[in-house]
Amino acid sequence: MAELHLTALIEALRRLPGVGVKSAQRMAFHLLQHDRDGALRLAQALHDAVQRVGHCARCYTFSEAPVCATCLDPRRDARLLAVVETPADQAALERTGSYHGLYFVLLGRLSPLDGVGARDIGVTELLQRVDEGGVEEVILATSFTAEGEATAHLLGQALRERGLKVTRLARGVPAGSELEYVDLSTIAHALVERR
Amino acid sequence: MAELHLTALIEALRRLPGVGVKSAQRMAFHLLQHDRDGALRLAQALHDAVQRVGHCARCYTFSEAPVCATCLDPRRDARLLAVVETPADQAALERTGSYHGLYFVLLGRLSPLDGVGARDIGVTELLQRVDEGGVEEVILATSFTAEGEATAHLLGQALRERGLKVTRLARGVPAGSELEYVDLSTIAHALVERR
Repeated sequence: MAELHLTALIEALRRLPGVGVKSAQRMAFHLLQHDRDGALRLAQALHDAVQRVGHCARCYTFSEAPVCATCLDPRRDARLLAVVETPADQAALERTGSYHGLYFVLLGRLSPLDGVGARDIGVTELLQRVDEGGVEEVILATSFTAEGEATAHLLGQALRERGLKVTRLARGVPAGSELEYVDLSTIAHALVERR
Repeated sequence: MAELHLTALIEALRRLPGVGVKSAQRMAFHLLQHDRDGALRLAQALHDAVQRVGHCARCYTFSEAPVCATCLDPRRDARLLAVVETPADQAALERTGSYHGLYFVLLGRLSPLDGVGARDIGVTELLQRVDEGGVEEVILATSFTAEGEATAHLLGQALRERGLKVTRLARGVPAGSELEYVDLSTIAHALVERR
């Protein structure tokens, strides 16, 4: 195609996570054919977000204010700090309605193969945060994947050295599931951690 | 989330075809965390494309010039006109290397349930185009779906009335496939159209 701007648009769309050549083409054609307004709105939204969305100085999540609303909320229990990998994980915890402490968002997890080490996931910032005092228990709510576990392990060591109570979300059989269809490693863990 | 610009970005991404809430969130977080350059580049690409990409006056495909490069190419056989649904279908035909005629891109197909009628898919423009003369055979290369077939049927009638030779891509068993795994309707068609 000799259409430079169309090609550039397809290339730019391809950089979105989970978007291959075919989807990028489909998106570009759709926007140009049916939703030019939507395309301009998306361009504006990208621009605004890059300009206005930064990180909360306390919990490191995405925030448009210097400190996010959750961190400023006086009703939250400042003695509890849940460490999560992403703002999406934070949102999932919030939706349960059963957590009232504060958060620290790593914005990543250890991933040596991708060159993501302790320094890239805000470990220093987390330790600084707890060194400021006030936190009594840190709940490590990273994923139950190999990388999430490694992250939790590393953080757990450093936090326990500081004399903090460190807990991890319970591993076990998900609500509503039949044992027959649960993977073996989950059942094994649930058995060990039975109560 | 009280983050207006982040929410607006997620909303704007959701309007892309095939993107739900979860993917839109993932895309927004990814761009803000790892690829702010990419986000700005995408914003620019969207802007440029909306501004610069129009339609070819002859074949109606996306084009940044008044008439596209294919339509201007003197080596193409102007007696052959392939009617396709989208620029992606046109690209697929081009990649075969075995078609040297010209194109007409409908940019859609009949879809009564979605309110897409004959007027919305460039039928008038197609008939105008063939009325200008020069075309001897129109190859209906719309999809082999119910909607694509209906489109081909409608176009075929109108074009035959004008005394043009109208053909359709052959239906049959795809290259490299084992009969056992080909769907029955394809086999039935291949049987009827055996040669």
